[in-house]
Amino acid sequence: MNAQAMVLEKFKEPLTPKYFPLPKLREGDILVKIEAAGVCGSDVHMWEGRDPRTRLPMILGHEGAGEIADMKGEKRDVYGVPLKTGDKVLWSRGVTCGHCYFCKVKTDPSLCPHRFVHGIHTSCAEPPYLTGNYAQYLLLDRRSDFFRVEKDIDLATLVPASCSGATTAHAFDLSGLQSGDSVLVQGVGPLGIFAVAFAHSLGASQIIVVGGTEARLKVCHSFGATLLLNRHRLSMEERRKIILEVTGGRGVDVAFEMAGEPEALKEGILSVRNGGRCITAGFGEPHGRIELDCFQDLGRKNLRLQGVWVSETRHTHMALQLVFTRLNDFARLITHRFPLNQADEALRVIKSREAVKAVLLPFSS
Amino acid sequence: MNAQAMVLEKFKEPLTPKYFPLPKLREGDILVKIEAAGVCGSDVHMWEGRDPRTRLPMILGHEGAGEIADMKGEKRDVYGVPLKTGDKVLWSRGVTCGHCYFCKVKTDPSLCPHRFVHGIHTSCAEPPYLTGNYAQYLLLDRRSDFFRVEKDIDLATLVPASCSGATTAHAFDLSGLQSGDSVLVQGVGPLGIFAVAFAHSLGASQIIVVGGTEARLKVCHSFGATLLLNRHRLSMEERRKIILEVTGGRGVDVAFEMAGEPEALKEGILSVRNGGRCITAGFGEPHGRIELDCFQDLGRKNLRLQGVWVSETRHTHMALQLVFTRLNDFARLITHRFPLNQADEALRVIKSREAVKAVLLPFSS
Amino acid sequence: MNAQAMVLEKFKEPLTPKYFPLPKLREGDILVKIEAAGVCGSDVHMWEGRDPRTRLPMILGHEGAGEIADMKGEKRDVYGVPLKTGDKVLWSRGVTCGHCYFCKVKTDPSLCPHRFVHGIHTSCAEPPYLTGNYAQYLLLDRRSDFFRVEKDIDLATLVPASCSGATTAHAFDLSGLQSGDSVLVQGVGPLGIFAVAFAHSLGASQIIVVGGTEARLKVCHSFGATLLLNRHRLSMEERRKIILEVTGGRGVDVAFEMAGEPEALKEGILSVRNGGRCITAGFGEPHGRIELDCFQDLGRKNLRLQGVWVSETRHTHMALQLVFTRLNDFARLITHRFPLNQADEALRVIKSREAVKAVLLPFSS
Amino acid sequence: MNAQAMVLEKFKEPLTPKYFPLPKLREGDILVKIEAAGVCGSDVHMWEGRDPRTRLPMILGHEGAGEIADMKGEKRDVYGVPLKTGDKVLWSRGVTCGHCYFCKVKTDPSLCPHRFVHGIHTSCAEPPYLTGNYAQYLLLDRRSDFFRVEKDIDLATLVPASCSGATTAHAFDLSGLQSGDSVLVQGVGPLGIFAVAFAHSLGASQIIVVGGTEARLKVCHSFGATLLLNRHRLSMEERRKIILEVTGGRGVDVAFEMAGEPEALKEGILSVRNGGRCITAGFGEPHGRIELDCFQDLGRKNLRLQGVWVSETRHTHMALQLVFTRLNDFARLITHRFPLNQADEALRVIKSREAVKAVLLPFSS
Repeated sequence: MNAQAMVLEKFKEPLTPKYFPLPKLREGDILVKIEAAGVCGSDVHMWEGRDPRTRLPMILGHEGAGEIADMKGEKRDVYGVPLKTGDKVLWSRGVTCGHCYFCKVKTDPSLCPHRFVHGIHTSCAEPPYLTGNYAQYLLLDRRSDFFRVEKDIDLATLVPASCSGATTAHAFDLSGLQSGDSVLVQGVGPLGIFAVAFAHSLGASQIIVVGGTEARLKVCHSFGATLLLNRHRLSMEERRKIILEVTGGRGVDVAFEMAGEPEALKEGILSVRNGGRCITAGFGEPHGRIELDCFQDLGRKNLRLQGVWVSETRHTHMALQLVFTRLNDFARLITHRFPLNQADEALRVIKSREAVKAVLLPFSS
Repeated sequence: MNAQAMVLEKFKEPLTPKYFPLPKLREGDILVKIEAAGVCGSDVHMWEGRDPRTRLPMILGHEGAGEIADMKGEKRDVYGVPLKTGDKVLWSRGVTCGHCYFCKVKTDPSLCPHRFVHGIHTSCAEPPYLTGNYAQYLLLDRRSDFFRVEKDIDLATLVPASCSGATTAHAFDLSGLQSGDSVLVQGVGPLGIFAVAFAHSLGASQIIVVGGTEARLKVCHSFGATLLLNRHRLSMEERRKIILEVTGGRGVDVAFEMAGEPEALKEGILSVRNGGRCITAGFGEPHGRIELDCFQDLGRKNLRLQGVWVSETRHTHMALQLVFTRLNDFARLITHRFPLNQADEALRVIKSREAVKAVLLPFSS
Repeated sequence: MNAQAMVLEKFKEPLTPKYFPLPKLREGDILVKIEAAGVCGSDVHMWEGRDPRTRLPMILGHEGAGEIADMKGEKRDVYGVPLKTGDKVLWSRGVTCGHCYFCKVKTDPSLCPHRFVHGIHTSCAEPPYLTGNYAQYLLLDRRSDFFRVEKDIDLATLVPASCSGATTAHAFDLSGLQSGDSVLVQGVGPLGIFAVAFAHSLGASQIIVVGGTEARLKVCHSFGATLLLNRHRLSMEERRKIILEVTGGRGVDVAFEMAGEPEALKEGILSVRNGGRCITAGFGEPHGRIELDCFQDLGRKNLRLQGVWVSETRHTHMALQLVFTRLNDFARLITHRFPLNQADEALRVIKSREAVKAVLLPFSS
Repeated sequence: MNAQAMVLEKFKEPLTPKYFPLPKLREGDILVKIEAAGVCGSDVHMWEGRDPRTRLPMILGHEGAGEIADMKGEKRDVYGVPLKTGDKVLWSRGVTCGHCYFCKVKTDPSLCPHRFVHGIHTSCAEPPYLTGNYAQYLLLDRRSDFFRVEKDIDLATLVPASCSGATTAHAFDLSGLQSGDSVLVQGVGPLGIFAVAFAHSLGASQIIVVGGTEARLKVCHSFGATLLLNRHRLSMEERRKIILEVTGGRGVDVAFEMAGEPEALKEGILSVRNGGRCITAGFGEPHGRIELDCFQDLGRKNLRLQGVWVSETRHTHMALQLVFTRLNDFARLITHRFPLNQADEALRVIKSREAVKAVLLPFSS
């Protein structure tokens, strides 16, 4: 039996449908039948050849959920539930070594130097081939962390939790947000929307969102945003004035830069109060620089500026639990669903920002 | 002009209505016209003579909100808003010295040895007399911390934030709760209900409540509880079995003992997972003992057992911000409202548990 | 080639010297030539048959350090140093699954339900036989975490870091100790001495030690203790009075119960200030109960009572780094060194408390 | 009776000796006879007219210690010790309001908008005149926090704890340093030396110091530095290579920028590992900018960049407790002692960096 996959053979060219044999399992391996594969903004960057990690040919797709088609040996999910064939599962996208300074001494596996992600660092030039989520099957080995999911839950709704949701959880984990804090969220893509949902679920008293798309600002409102600032209608100076007004002249307690724009980060720094925190999770790839006044922006301000890099299993747990509490809201984020062979169209609607989130359904008919 | 107050002159006897002259203000003083005074379970204990801090005669009532009737000198609320006559305000019930080991070195003013609360540690035998909230006016001095409130908000809804709400905020502050954690709340009085609301607002994935009153369990459900366990219908063994079932056999991540019963604390310890946390905020006065197995309950379990004593200004902030986000839900907690001269009836409905929360309205007609 | 090991075949009987074949290595295996094996108080308990985890026949010894004799495949230590034959190494005694709720969601592998320790949970009834440290060789597999050590360091000095040192690191990690805090250490065995050393290295302003052996109290003094209280010369009431005197009447900020005695834990609770922390790491096996007054000991006191269970790799790192900074002081803790075949004598001097720490040297002549 | 003070009347001109009457005390006032007044680098900046907070005429000097000459009313020090005339005391240099968002909600009084420091924000144009430490007497009111000191301790040794020591304590408090971490300290002035002492006292495994003065690097060594890098002998590239070498190629866990130079901050960011922390406490006044690559320096690096602004009472506590444990070492930092009327010379040796620390002794003969 063969599994179909959409292969990136040449940058900026349509993906090629290919068929690969299902692998023979080794001890600890789990073969997953992919029921939903998320299409991420970074997939577009990879497709465009802008990500130096890309090794062609490859199967794109690092967000997925599906059913265990086959497994060899015993395995439990992170909650201790024994896994078996037929179970619905989601997994941590990052695979880490478990034994290095970051994994074991600093318990920060997202920084593990051996970390890799299926569909990002993998090629399909060699066995086991099935190494990305734009495919009918994906092979995961004993190092992967699983989350078993109830059978009646729409898996497409869950896949964002494994990437943008988990990264946002990491951002909040590093933010030291306290109950009653005021929050600024910059950006209204999946990261920004997750940030609004997390801020709401973590007791923020105010959730101010800066974004450029009216429809997405409304989505943020439905997730709990208390003040929407459209950056096409309000200048940065106007936005800053409003933010100061609603925060007693101090600025917000915590700003989350989820846009990946140096301008946003600069605005975030200007928008937090003295002693505030500016968390930047938007820079998944090189994109510009900022200049800081050492006294005004850092010292006198007692600023905490915190970068965020990817995520780890516990963040996927946090994101998934968040999604479980608001399944209907999160279902609406999946604005586009495509069969596997329309992966190019899925990449297009992500690139054009028509979609908030697009998901491939390799077994939909 | 004189202000009416309900005075406790003799334990277990009806309160006596008395009239006191309004005080002449000193620099920093603020005279508040009480619009809503909360009636707390500990008021009943004081009335019964069970609280050794009580110095007769006294004006009961440590929870209040109202309007600034007069003030001398400049004062800002904790958000930096300049206060003026006519402003609606709530304040921290605890007054602390601001200069001791607890206030300044450990930034834990709730443990300040000089801390006192109007309506608990105060007598009305001497000027300025107006030292409790069961009265038309209350005198606060420069050491008090204020929260200005918008004029259109029902003050009765807010008063619980200054006592049970703030104490619950303190409990959560000490709990280290993480997004996605499972939570057990024990007790369905104001502390327990606030605990459900905080757990919900802080990203708990499961909120299991153990209580003895069906109606209050339903209130908990409306605040976000995911599993209700009536202790009159389920034995402790049955409850424990259920809790283990829904937590993968591990037990909850954090248990909040808000009932003030040794049996509850013991059940809490049995219900948390290894490495879990058991937060006990229910013991506002002496009431029993528990026995722990040093190895089984503490060492092997890696348990954290955390006592909680009262609260401080930042906890009032947290509670108030929480109430602001759910004003309608919290308004329903105020099941009974009485004019000032029916304070005895208010104490009765609290003692009998007919009321979830009773509030005196000294200026209602 | 065969390796000698001292085997526990029957409780309370002398260990039996036995010879086992060196195992054939699988991918990821590392065979260590044991140069120093620590003898721990819990080895005595196992030898006496008091530890239910013991499966006879077995090779005792869970603390070790030595030289890599053979290895299959590539492996790095936790600092990223590639390991090779001939390297001197120490390792984490606990082997954990790396994929469960405790390992990955709570990053608390010491609570992993699959955790096991060579020399505690292992039997030598079957291959690979060499599963404890009272032997010339020990087989470790890919799940173990290593620390490479410079060749000129006395390995005997390091072995306590992997057990009592790491457990004490865990205790401090959970204590939230702040610079300038006052500390009480209860117990003067290896755990207590490590606690003094950690308290000193973490900026404690006062380090009060309660112990029963004058010689060991002096050792504590050399590690930084500022006040020594011999419990045979001072009653608990006298000790408590002294502790209050030197802490401004408040009690210490943090107490570390490292003795495994319920009386000590009770004294610790009485000796910490309001809001203080009582960390109990002494109960490695069942030994008694304590009774707490819910109001006086927990609620009113705002006490944090924290149990500590074993340790994990990052704690071994902390302990090892501490030992490195004071090698001469820690060398003096190793009061007894024996060849492998005198393991019974080593157990005797630990049981009798003649030795602070005894170490077996399997290759000494 | 009159008190002598050295008054800054005109920038860059010699200070003028003046005599002011001792003030009549109000309730809560404490009049201190200054026995030691620290001369700080920022005094030089004020003298030069570079600090916009300066209001002429003024008495410089914000670091002091002395004896209580007179007091009105009762007062306890932060440890609860009742103060009386004749007591030796040190005090927190910052006076804060105790009731604002920063003081009470965020327990971060160093950011209180009403904070002021005697000798920085004060003028001596009006009563009570005696508002700076370059004088025989200083008037402090009820808002000040005191530390009583044993009579046999040299007060000159203690004064740095109230400024550079406390600010460094703040830096470490914000650093999240863990036992066993590697540390880089940049700068070898009082801040840098305190940073070495704190790093040593908080369990750093490696303390690497970058400085430009060989003599001061040696002082750092005496405080526990493990590697000294003279920036006049090693290029930044060479230093970075060395730092990577001794940290397994990762970089240090935490860097402390205590030099106030943008170049140092940039080097710090390059020198910390992924997920590391860069704490910048050196910028007490405007001095340059840095440019950061959003991806490389922040996102991919998961960097925490933390500014530090002044300090508060609990940091003075930490610094003072640190100094108490190493009085002899800290005594050697006071390289220059002058009578009050040689304040100009004291400013000169600080400006020229001849002195590590200079102290005025207003009552020395």
